[in-house]
Amino acid sequence: MKLALVKLGGSVITFKDRPLAANTGAIDDISRVLAGLDMPLMVVHGGGSFGHHWSVQYDMHTRPAAYDPHGVAVVHESMLALNEIIVNSMIKAGANPYAIVPSAFTNGHDAVPAKIKQLYEMSKTVVPMTFGDVVYMGGRKYSILSGDSLMSIIAKVLRPSRVIFATNVDGIYRDMASKEVVKELRPGRAGAVEFSKVNGADVTGGMQRKVREAFKIASMGMDVVLVNGLHPERIAEAARGRVDGTVVRRYK
Amino acid sequence: MKLALVKLGGSVITFKDRPLAANTGAIDDISRVLAGLDMPLMVVHGGGSFGHHWSVQYDMHTRPAAYDPHGVAVVHESMLALNEIIVNSMIKAGANPYAIVPSAFTNGHDAVPAKIKQLYEMSKTVVPMTFGDVVYMGGRKYSILSGDSLMSIIAKVLRPSRVIFATNVDGIYRDMASKEVVKELRPGRAGAVEFSKVNGADVTGGMQRKVREAFKIASMGMDVVLVNGLHPERIAEAARGRVDGTVVRRYK
Repeated sequence: MKLALVKLGGSVITFKDRPLAANTGAIDDISRVLAGLDMPLMVVHGGGSFGHHWSVQYDMHTRPAAYDPHGVAVVHESMLALNEIIVNSMIKAGANPYAIVPSAFTNGHDAVPAKIKQLYEMSKTVVPMTFGDVVYMGGRKYSILSGDSLMSIIAKVLRPSRVIFATNVDGIYRDMASKEVVKELRPGRAGAVEFSKVNGADVTGGMQRKVREAFKIASMGMDVVLVNGLHPERIAEAARGRVDGTVVRRYK
Repeated sequence: MKLALVKLGGSVITFKDRPLAANTGAIDDISRVLAGLDMPLMVVHGGGSFGHHWSVQYDMHTRPAAYDPHGVAVVHESMLALNEIIVNSMIKAGANPYAIVPSAFTNGHDAVPAKIKQLYEMSKTVVPMTFGDVVYMGGRKYSILSGDSLMSIIAKVLRPSRVIFATNVDGIYRDMASKEVVKELRPGRAGAVEFSKVNGADVTGGMQRKVREAFKIASMGMDVVLVNGLHPERIAEAARGRVDGTVVRRYK
Protein backbone atom coordinates (compact mmCIF):
# COMPACT_ATOMS: atom_id res chain seq x y z
CA MET A 1 0.00 0.00 0.00
CA LYS A 2 1.19 3.55 -0.63
CA LEU A 3 1.35 4.51 3.00
CA ALA A 4 3.88 5.86 5.46
CA LEU A 5 3.61 4.11 8.81
CA VAL A 6 5.55 6.18 11.33
CA LYS A 7 6.41 5.27 14.91
CA LEU A 8 7.24 8.22 17.15
CA GLY A 9 9.33 6.83 19.98
CA GLY A 10 8.71 7.83 23.56
CA SER A 11 12.28 9.17 23.69
CA VAL A 12 11.44 11.68 20.95
CA ILE A 13 8.06 12.98 22.12
CA THR A 14 8.74 13.00 25.87
CA PHE A 15 11.61 13.67 28.24
CA LYS A 16 12.12 10.18 29.59
CA ASP A 17 14.07 11.36 32.62
CA ARG A 18 11.12 13.42 33.92
CA PRO A 19 7.64 12.00 34.60
CA LEU A 20 4.74 13.30 32.49
CA ALA A 21 6.91 15.70 30.50
CA ALA A 22 6.04 16.00 26.81
CA ASN A 23 8.72 17.33 24.49
CA THR A 24 6.31 19.81 22.94
CA GLY A 25 9.05 21.43 20.86
CA ALA A 26 9.90 18.13 19.18
CA ILE A 27 6.21 17.26 18.83
CA ASP A 28 5.41 20.57 17.12
CA ASP A 29 8.38 20.22 14.77
CA ILE A 30 7.33 16.69 13.84
CA SER A 31 3.71 17.78 13.36
CA ARG A 32 4.75 20.49 10.91
CA VAL A 33 6.79 18.00 8.91
CA LEU A 34 4.08 15.33 8.90
CA ALA A 35 1.41 17.89 7.93
CA GLY A 36 3.49 18.62 4.83
CA LEU A 37 3.62 15.02 3.60
CA ASP A 38 1.54 14.40 0.49
CA MET A 39 0.87 10.70 0.96
CA PRO A 40 -1.36 8.59 3.21
CA LEU A 41 0.08 8.54 6.70
CA MET A 42 -0.53 6.62 9.87
CA VAL A 43 1.16 7.40 13.19
CA VAL A 44 1.91 5.17 16.17
CA HIS A 45 3.47 6.65 19.27
CA GLY A 46 5.10 5.33 22.39
CA GLY A 47 4.50 6.11 26.03
CA GLY A 48 7.79 7.59 27.21
CA SER A 49 7.41 9.53 30.43
CA PHE A 50 3.62 9.07 30.31
CA GLY A 51 2.36 5.50 29.86
CA HIS A 52 5.75 3.89 30.21
CA HIS A 53 6.41 5.84 33.41
CA TRP A 54 3.15 4.67 35.00
CA SER A 55 3.41 1.11 33.75
CA VAL A 56 6.73 0.85 35.61
CA GLN A 57 5.17 2.40 38.73
CA TYR A 58 2.32 -0.12 38.65
CA ASP A 59 4.59 -3.03 37.67
CA MET A 60 2.67 -3.73 34.46
CA HIS A 61 4.17 -5.64 31.56
CA THR A 62 3.41 -7.24 28.21
CA ARG A 63 2.63 -10.48 30.05
CA PRO A 64 -1.15 -10.70 30.60
CA ALA A 65 -2.00 -10.59 34.29
CA ALA A 66 -4.59 -9.29 36.75
CA TYR A 67 -2.82 -5.96 37.23
CA ASP A 68 -4.14 -3.33 39.65
CA PRO A 69 -7.25 -1.85 37.95
CA HIS A 70 -6.23 1.60 39.16
CA GLY A 71 -2.92 1.13 37.33
CA VAL A 72 -4.85 0.10 34.22
CA ALA A 73 -6.91 3.30 34.46
CA VAL A 74 -3.91 5.53 35.11
CA VAL A 75 -1.69 4.08 32.37
CA HIS A 76 -4.52 4.28 29.81
CA GLU A 77 -5.43 7.84 30.84
CA SER A 78 -1.82 8.98 30.61
CA MET A 79 -1.57 7.63 27.06
CA LEU A 80 -4.73 9.51 26.09
CA ALA A 81 -3.25 12.65 27.68
CA LEU A 82 -0.01 12.33 25.68
CA ASN A 83 -2.02 11.50 22.57
CA GLU A 84 -4.09 14.65 23.07
CA ILE A 85 -0.94 16.76 23.07
CA ILE A 86 0.22 15.25 19.78
CA VAL A 87 -3.24 15.40 18.19
CA ASN A 88 -3.62 19.08 19.11
CA SER A 89 -0.16 19.81 17.76
CA MET A 90 -1.06 18.07 14.49
CA ILE A 91 -4.31 20.03 14.20
CA LYS A 92 -2.44 23.29 14.84
CA ALA A 93 -0.03 22.32 12.06
CA GLY A 94 -2.96 21.89 9.67
CA ALA A 95 -3.11 18.09 9.64
CA ASN A 96 -6.26 16.08 10.36
CA PRO A 97 -5.34 13.51 13.01
CA TYR A 98 -7.89 10.97 14.21
CA ALA A 99 -6.93 9.13 17.39
CA ILE A 100 -7.92 5.49 17.83
CA VAL A 101 -7.21 3.29 20.83
CA PRO A 102 -5.42 0.11 19.76
CA SER A 103 -8.22 -2.06 21.09
CA ALA A 104 -10.32 -0.68 18.21
CA PHE A 105 -8.30 -2.80 15.77
CA THR A 106 -6.86 -5.54 17.95
CA ASN A 107 -8.12 -8.31 20.16
CA GLY A 108 -5.58 -8.54 22.91
CA HIS A 109 -2.30 -8.63 20.96
CA ASP A 110 -3.89 -10.02 17.79
CA ALA A 111 -4.76 -8.01 14.71
CA VAL A 112 -8.35 -7.49 13.59
CA PRO A 113 -7.47 -7.25 9.87
CA ALA A 114 -10.81 -5.74 8.74
CA LYS A 115 -10.43 -2.89 11.22
CA ILE A 116 -6.80 -2.30 10.27
CA LYS A 117 -7.76 -2.13 6.60
CA GLN A 118 -10.36 0.44 7.60
CA LEU A 119 -7.57 2.54 9.13
CA TYR A 120 -5.89 2.51 5.74
CA GLU A 121 -9.12 3.66 4.07
CA MET A 122 -9.35 6.43 6.66
CA SER A 123 -5.78 7.51 5.90
CA LYS A 124 -7.06 8.90 2.60
CA THR A 125 -8.95 11.62 4.52
CA VAL A 126 -7.41 11.81 8.01
CA VAL A 127 -4.26 10.68 9.80
CA PRO A 128 -5.12 7.67 11.97
CA MET A 129 -3.10 7.90 15.19
CA THR A 130 -2.68 5.17 17.73
CA PHE A 131 -0.33 4.38 20.60
CA GLY A 132 1.11 1.81 22.90
CA ASP A 133 -1.49 1.12 25.56
CA VAL A 134 -2.74 -1.18 28.27
CA VAL A 135 -5.23 -3.53 26.64
CA TYR A 136 -7.81 -6.01 27.85
CA MET A 137 -6.87 -9.69 27.64
CA GLY A 138 -10.00 -11.40 28.97
CA GLY A 139 -11.07 -12.35 32.48
CA ARG A 140 -9.49 -9.84 34.85
CA LYS A 141 -6.31 -9.69 32.81
CA TYR A 142 -4.68 -6.76 31.04
CA SER A 143 -1.39 -6.35 29.23
CA ILE A 144 0.90 -3.67 27.83
CA LEU A 145 0.77 -3.62 24.04
CA SER A 146 3.76 -1.55 22.98
CA GLY A 147 3.85 0.94 20.14
CA ASP A 148 6.64 -1.15 18.61
CA SER A 149 4.42 -4.26 18.61
CA LEU A 150 1.64 -2.22 17.00
CA MET A 151 4.02 -1.40 14.16
CA SER A 152 4.38 -5.11 13.36
CA ILE A 153 0.66 -5.74 13.76
CA ILE A 154 -0.28 -2.93 11.37
CA ALA A 155 2.56 -3.52 8.91
CA LYS A 156 1.69 -7.19 8.55
CA VAL A 157 -1.84 -6.37 7.40
CA LEU A 158 -1.23 -3.22 5.34
CA ARG A 159 2.31 -3.76 3.99
CA PRO A 160 3.02 -0.01 3.95
CA SER A 161 5.43 1.31 1.33
CA ARG A 162 7.34 3.06 4.15
CA VAL A 163 7.83 1.77 7.67
CA ILE A 164 9.68 4.32 9.76
CA PHE A 165 10.81 4.24 13.39
CA ALA A 166 11.74 7.67 14.74
CA THR A 167 13.96 7.43 17.80
CA ASN A 168 16.32 9.83 19.58
CA VAL A 169 19.45 8.47 17.88
CA ASP A 170 20.67 8.65 14.29
CA GLY A 171 20.16 4.96 13.53
CA ILE A 172 21.76 1.70 14.52
CA TYR A 173 25.37 2.20 15.58
CA ARG A 174 28.28 0.06 14.38
CA ASP A 175 29.52 0.30 17.97
CA MET A 176 28.91 2.55 20.94
CA ALA A 177 32.44 3.96 20.90
CA SER A 178 32.42 5.38 17.37
CA LYS A 179 28.63 5.82 17.12
CA GLU A 180 29.05 5.29 13.40
CA VAL A 181 25.59 4.69 11.88
CA VAL A 182 25.12 1.47 9.93
CA LYS A 183 23.50 2.58 6.67
CA GLU A 184 22.07 -0.77 5.78
CA LEU A 185 21.42 -4.01 7.59
CA ARG A 186 20.72 -7.19 5.68
CA PRO A 187 19.41 -9.56 8.29
CA GLY A 188 18.63 -12.16 5.62
CA ARG A 189 22.32 -12.63 4.95
CA ALA A 190 23.22 -12.76 8.59
CA GLY A 191 21.28 -15.98 8.94
CA ALA A 192 20.01 -16.42 12.46
CA VAL A 193 19.27 -13.02 13.93
CA GLU A 194 21.31 -12.21 16.97
CA PHE A 195 20.21 -8.81 18.16
CA SER A 196 23.15 -7.82 20.25
CA LYS A 197 25.55 -8.30 17.35
CA VAL A 198 23.94 -7.88 13.93
CA ASN A 199 26.35 -7.78 11.02
CA GLY A 200 28.86 -6.37 13.42
CA ALA A 201 26.48 -3.63 14.62
CA ASP A 202 26.11 -2.97 18.31
CA VAL A 203 22.47 -3.15 19.29
CA THR A 204 21.92 -2.67 22.97
CA GLY A 205 19.56 -1.09 25.46
CA GLY A 206 16.33 0.63 24.42
CA MET A 207 17.18 0.16 20.77
CA GLN A 208 16.97 -3.61 21.07
CA ARG A 209 13.20 -3.84 21.06
CA LYS A 210 12.93 -1.49 18.12
CA VAL A 211 15.46 -3.53 16.17
CA ARG A 212 13.64 -6.73 17.02
CA GLU A 213 10.40 -5.30 15.60
CA ALA A 214 12.27 -3.86 12.61
CA PHE A 215 13.70 -7.31 11.86
CA LYS A 216 10.31 -8.89 12.31
CA ILE A 217 8.78 -6.47 9.81
CA ALA A 218 11.74 -6.89 7.42
CA SER A 219 11.16 -10.64 7.60
CA MET A 220 7.63 -9.98 6.28
CA GLY A 221 9.20 -8.47 3.16
CA MET A 222 9.27 -4.74 3.91
CA ASP A 223 12.22 -2.37 4.26
CA VAL A 224 12.25 -0.71 7.66
CA VAL A 225 13.89 2.61 8.37
CA LEU A 226 15.25 3.94 11.66
CA VAL A 227 15.87 7.69 11.79
CA ASN A 228 16.43 10.39 14.38
CA GLY A 229 13.05 11.98 15.10
CA LEU A 230 14.72 14.93 16.77
CA HIS A 231 15.62 15.88 13.19
CA PRO A 232 12.03 15.61 11.94
CA GLU A 233 12.87 16.39 8.32
CA ARG A 234 14.54 12.96 8.29
CA ILE A 235 11.12 11.38 8.87
CA ALA A 236 9.70 13.22 5.85
CA GLU A 237 12.77 12.37 3.75
CA ALA A 238 12.48 8.71 4.71
CA ALA A 239 8.80 8.78 3.71
CA ARG A 240 10.01 10.06 0.33
CA GLY A 241 12.55 7.24 0.11
CA ARG A 242 15.73 9.13 1.03
CA VAL A 243 17.11 7.70 4.22
CA ASP A 244 19.43 9.50 6.60
CA GLY A 245 19.61 6.70 9.16
CA THR A 246 19.56 2.90 9.01
CA VAL A 247 17.63 0.76 6.56
CA VAL A 248 16.87 -2.78 7.61
CA ARG A 249 16.39 -4.55 4.28
CA ARG A 250 13.46 -6.79 3.66
CA TYR A 251 14.07 -10.51 3.43
CA LYS A 252 11.98 -13.58 3.21
CA MET B 1 -26.81 -8.39 32.94
CA LYS B 2 -26.21 -6.83 36.36
CA LEU B 3 -24.89 -3.58 34.98
CA ALA B 4 -25.68 0.13 35.24
CA LEU B 5 -25.43 1.80 31.85
CA VAL B 6 -25.36 5.54 32.46
CA LYS B 7 -25.56 8.30 29.89
CA LEU B 8 -24.22 11.67 31.02
CA GLY B 9 -25.89 14.29 28.87
CA GLY B 10 -23.95 17.14 27.33
CA SER B 11 -26.22 19.55 29.23
CA VAL B 12 -24.99 18.08 32.54
CA ILE B 13 -21.25 17.86 31.94
CA THR B 14 -20.81 21.07 29.93
CA PHE B 15 -22.22 24.59 29.79
CA LYS B 16 -24.01 24.37 26.46
CA ASP B 17 -24.25 28.15 26.08
CA ARG B 18 -20.45 28.56 26.10
CA PRO B 19 -18.08 26.77 23.71
CA LEU B 20 -15.59 24.29 25.18
CA ALA B 21 -16.73 24.84 28.77
CA ALA B 22 -16.83 21.73 30.93
CA ASN B 23 -19.03 21.82 34.02
CA THR B 24 -16.21 20.51 36.19
CA GLY B 25 -18.24 20.95 39.38
CA ALA B 26 -21.00 18.69 38.09
CA ILE B 27 -18.47 16.23 36.66
CA ASP B 28 -16.62 15.94 39.97
CA ASP B 29 -19.89 15.46 41.89
CA ILE B 30 -21.00 12.74 39.46
CA SER B 31 -17.58 11.05 39.62
CA ARG B 32 -17.76 10.83 43.40
CA VAL B 33 -21.21 9.27 43.23
CA LEU B 34 -20.28 6.80 40.48
CA ALA B 35 -17.06 5.84 42.29
CA GLY B 36 -19.23 4.80 45.23
CA LEU B 37 -21.44 2.41 43.24
CA ASP B 38 -20.85 -1.24 44.06
CA MET B 39 -21.98 -2.78 40.79
CA PRO B 40 -20.57 -3.05 37.26
CA LEU B 41 -20.87 0.31 35.55
CA MET B 42 -20.48 1.62 32.03
CA VAL B 43 -20.63 5.32 31.13
CA VAL B 44 -21.56 7.02 27.87
CA HIS B 45 -21.29 10.79 27.57
CA GLY B 46 -22.48 13.41 25.17
CA GLY B 47 -20.64 16.23 23.43
CA GLY B 48 -22.32 19.36 24.73
CA SER B 49 -20.21 22.45 24.22
CA PHE B 50 -17.32 20.30 22.96
CA GLY B 51 -18.15 17.84 20.16
CA HIS B 52 -21.66 19.11 19.61
CA HIS B 53 -20.40 22.69 19.39
CA TRP B 54 -17.85 21.80 16.70
CA SER B 55 -20.15 19.47 14.78
CA VAL B 56 -22.53 22.43 14.37
CA GLN B 57 -19.66 24.69 13.28
CA TYR B 58 -18.56 22.16 10.65
CA ASP B 59 -22.13 21.31 9.62
CA MET B 60 -21.75 17.64 10.47
CA HIS B 61 -24.70 15.35 11.11
CA THR B 62 -25.73 11.76 11.68
CA ARG B 63 -26.21 11.40 7.91
CA PRO B 64 -23.02 9.87 6.42
CA ALA B 65 -21.29 12.33 4.09
CA ALA B 66 -17.84 13.47 2.95
CA TYR B 67 -17.55 16.10 5.69
CA ASP B 68 -14.53 18.40 5.91
CA PRO B 69 -11.67 16.20 7.22
CA HIS B 70 -10.49 19.06 9.41
CA GLY B 71 -13.96 19.11 11.00
CA VAL B 72 -13.67 15.35 11.55
CA ALA B 73 -10.32 15.86 13.30
CA VAL B 74 -11.54 18.77 15.42
CA VAL B 75 -14.82 17.16 16.52
CA HIS B 76 -13.06 13.91 17.43
CA GLU B 77 -10.29 15.73 19.29
CA SER B 78 -12.78 17.82 21.25
CA MET B 79 -14.58 14.67 22.38
CA LEU B 80 -11.30 13.16 23.55
CA ALA B 81 -10.57 16.41 25.40
CA LEU B 82 -13.93 16.33 27.20
CA ASN B 83 -13.51 12.64 27.88
CA GLU B 84 -10.09 13.31 29.42
CA ILE B 85 -11.67 15.76 31.87
CA ILE B 86 -14.24 13.18 32.97
CA VAL B 87 -11.72 10.33 33.10
CA ASN B 88 -9.36 12.38 35.27
CA SER B 89 -12.22 13.37 37.54
CA MET B 90 -13.20 9.71 37.91
CA ILE B 91 -9.61 8.70 38.70
CA LYS B 92 -9.39 11.47 41.30
CA ALA B 93 -12.60 10.12 42.85
CA GLY B 94 -11.00 6.69 43.17
CA ALA B 95 -12.76 4.99 40.24
CA ASN B 96 -10.95 3.15 37.46
CA PRO B 97 -12.28 4.56 34.18
CA TYR B 98 -11.09 3.14 30.84
CA ALA B 99 -11.96 5.27 27.82
CA ILE B 100 -12.81 3.58 24.53
CA VAL B 101 -13.69 5.30 21.27
CA PRO B 102 -17.03 4.03 19.95
CA SER B 103 -15.40 2.77 16.76
CA ALA B 104 -13.76 0.12 18.96
CA PHE B 105 -17.11 -1.64 19.33
CA THR B 106 -19.10 -0.43 16.32
CA ASN B 107 -18.81 -0.51 12.56
CA GLY B 108 -20.31 2.74 11.43
CA HIS B 109 -23.58 2.82 13.40
CA ASP B 110 -23.78 -0.96 13.79
CA ALA B 111 -22.89 -2.88 16.91
CA VAL B 112 -19.97 -5.31 17.01
CA PRO B 113 -21.54 -7.59 19.63
CA ALA B 114 -18.35 -9.48 20.55
CA LYS B 115 -16.60 -6.20 21.37
CA ILE B 116 -19.57 -4.89 23.34
CA LYS B 117 -19.65 -8.10 25.37
CA GLN B 118 -15.96 -7.52 26.06
CA LEU B 119 -16.84 -4.11 27.51
CA TYR B 120 -19.14 -5.88 29.93
CA GLU B 121 -16.34 -8.27 30.92
CA MET B 122 -14.11 -5.24 31.45
CA SER B 123 -16.74 -3.61 33.67
CA LYS B 124 -15.86 -6.19 36.33
CA THR B 125 -12.45 -4.50 36.78
CA VAL B 126 -12.71 -1.00 35.26
CA VAL B 127 -15.41 1.45 34.20
CA PRO B 128 -15.60 1.42 30.38
CA MET B 129 -16.30 4.95 29.20
CA THR B 130 -17.33 5.97 25.72
CA PHE B 131 -18.93 8.97 24.06
CA GLY B 132 -20.78 10.39 21.11
CA ASP B 133 -18.25 10.82 18.32
CA VAL B 134 -17.65 11.32 14.63
CA VAL B 135 -17.15 7.85 13.15
CA TYR B 136 -15.90 6.47 9.87
CA MET B 137 -18.55 5.23 7.43
CA GLY B 138 -16.47 3.99 4.51
CA GLY B 139 -15.11 5.74 1.43
CA ARG B 140 -14.55 9.38 2.35
CA LYS B 141 -17.65 9.45 4.53
CA TYR B 142 -18.04 10.12 8.22
CA SER B 143 -21.04 10.55 10.49
CA ILE B 144 -22.00 11.72 13.94
CA LEU B 145 -22.86 8.79 16.20
CA SER B 146 -24.60 10.32 19.22
CA GLY B 147 -24.20 9.24 22.81
CA ASP B 148 -27.95 8.57 22.86
CA SER B 149 -27.63 6.17 19.92
CA LEU B 150 -24.74 4.43 21.67
CA MET B 151 -27.07 3.77 24.61
CA SER B 152 -29.41 1.78 22.34
CA ILE B 153 -26.53 -0.01 20.64
CA ILE B 154 -24.99 -1.11 23.94
CA ALA B 155 -28.30 -1.84 25.70
CA LYS B 156 -29.47 -4.09 22.88
CA VAL B 157 -26.43 -6.36 23.25
CA LEU B 158 -25.94 -6.30 27.03
CA ARG B 159 -29.49 -5.84 28.35
CA PRO B 160 -28.24 -3.94 31.43
CA SER B 161 -30.28 -4.20 34.62
CA ARG B 162 -30.27 -0.38 34.80
CA VAL B 163 -30.39 2.02 31.86
CA ILE B 164 -30.12 5.60 33.06
CA PHE B 165 -30.14 8.88 31.17
CA ALA B 166 -28.86 11.82 33.23
CA THR B 167 -30.01 15.15 31.82
CA ASN B 168 -30.33 18.66 33.24
CA VAL B 169 -34.05 18.32 34.02
CA ASP B 170 -35.92 16.27 36.60
CA GLY B 171 -37.50 13.88 34.10
CA ILE B 172 -40.19 14.05 31.45
CA TYR B 173 -42.63 16.84 32.16
CA ARG B 174 -46.42 16.47 32.02
CA ASP B 175 -46.40 19.91 30.39
CA MET B 176 -44.00 22.81 30.19
CA ALA B 177 -46.24 25.11 32.24
CA SER B 178 -46.46 23.03 35.42
CA LYS B 179 -43.15 21.15 34.86
CA GLU B 180 -44.74 18.30 36.78
CA VAL B 181 -42.58 15.19 36.31
CA VAL B 182 -44.28 12.11 34.87
CA LYS B 183 -43.25 9.30 37.23
CA GLU B 184 -43.95 6.50 34.82
CA LEU B 185 -44.54 6.19 31.10
CA ARG B 186 -46.02 3.05 29.64
CA PRO B 187 -45.39 3.40 25.94
CA GLY B 188 -46.69 -0.11 25.32
CA ARG B 189 -50.17 0.93 26.35
CA ALA B 190 -50.03 4.12 24.32
CA GLY B 191 -49.92 2.06 21.16
CA ALA B 192 -48.10 3.89 18.40
CA VAL B 193 -45.48 6.14 19.97
CA GLU B 194 -45.98 9.80 19.28
CA PHE B 195 -43.10 11.60 20.85
CA SER B 196 -44.51 15.06 21.17
CA LYS B 197 -47.47 13.82 23.20
CA VAL B 198 -46.83 10.63 25.11
CA ASN B 199 -49.56 9.62 27.55
CA GLY B 200 -50.31 13.30 27.89
CA ALA B 201 -46.69 14.21 28.61
CA ASP B 202 -45.09 17.14 26.85
CA VAL B 203 -41.90 15.99 25.15
CA THR B 204 -40.26 18.75 23.20
CA GLY B 205 -36.86 20.12 22.27
CA GLY B 206 -33.59 18.48 23.36
CA MET B 207 -35.51 15.92 25.39
CA GLN B 208 -37.11 14.48 22.29
CA ARG B 209 -34.08 12.50 21.09
CA LYS B 210 -33.48 11.12 24.57
CA VAL B 211 -37.09 10.02 24.83
CA ARG B 212 -36.93 8.45 21.39
CA GLU B 213 -33.91 6.37 22.48
CA ALA B 214 -35.54 5.60 25.83
CA PHE B 215 -38.62 4.28 24.03
CA LYS B 216 -36.47 2.29 21.66
CA ILE B 217 -34.66 0.66 24.57
CA ALA B 218 -37.97 0.12 26.43
CA SER B 219 -39.28 -1.62 23.32
CA MET B 220 -36.36 -4.08 23.67
CA GLY B 221 -37.75 -5.03 27.06
CA MET B 222 -35.78 -2.88 29.49
CA ASP B 223 -36.97 -0.17 31.87
CA VAL B 224 -35.29 3.15 31.14
CA VAL B 225 -34.82 5.89 33.69
CA LEU B 226 -34.42 9.63 33.12
CA VAL B 227 -33.05 11.61 36.07
CA ASN B 228 -31.51 14.97 36.74
CA GLY B 229 -27.73 14.53 36.63
CA LEU B 230 -27.23 17.89 38.36
CA HIS B 231 -28.45 15.98 41.43
CA PRO B 232 -25.92 13.15 41.01
CA GLU B 233 -27.20 11.12 43.96
CA ARG B 234 -30.29 10.49 41.80
CA ILE B 235 -28.07 8.58 39.36
CA ALA B 236 -26.79 6.36 42.16
CA GLU B 237 -30.30 5.91 43.57
CA ALA B 238 -31.61 4.97 40.12
CA ALA B 239 -28.79 2.42 39.80
CA ARG B 240 -30.04 0.96 43.10
CA GLY B 241 -33.59 0.87 41.75
CA ARG B 242 -35.07 3.91 43.48
CA VAL B 243 -36.08 6.43 40.87
CA ASP B 244 -36.49 10.16 41.47
CA GLY B 245 -37.34 11.02 37.87
CA THR B 246 -39.21 9.29 35.04
CA VAL B 247 -39.30 5.56 34.35
CA VAL B 248 -40.14 4.50 30.82
CA ARG B 249 -41.49 1.00 31.32
CA ARG B 250 -40.32 -1.88 29.19
CA TYR B 251 -42.71 -3.32 26.66
CA LYS B 252 -42.52 -5.84 23.89
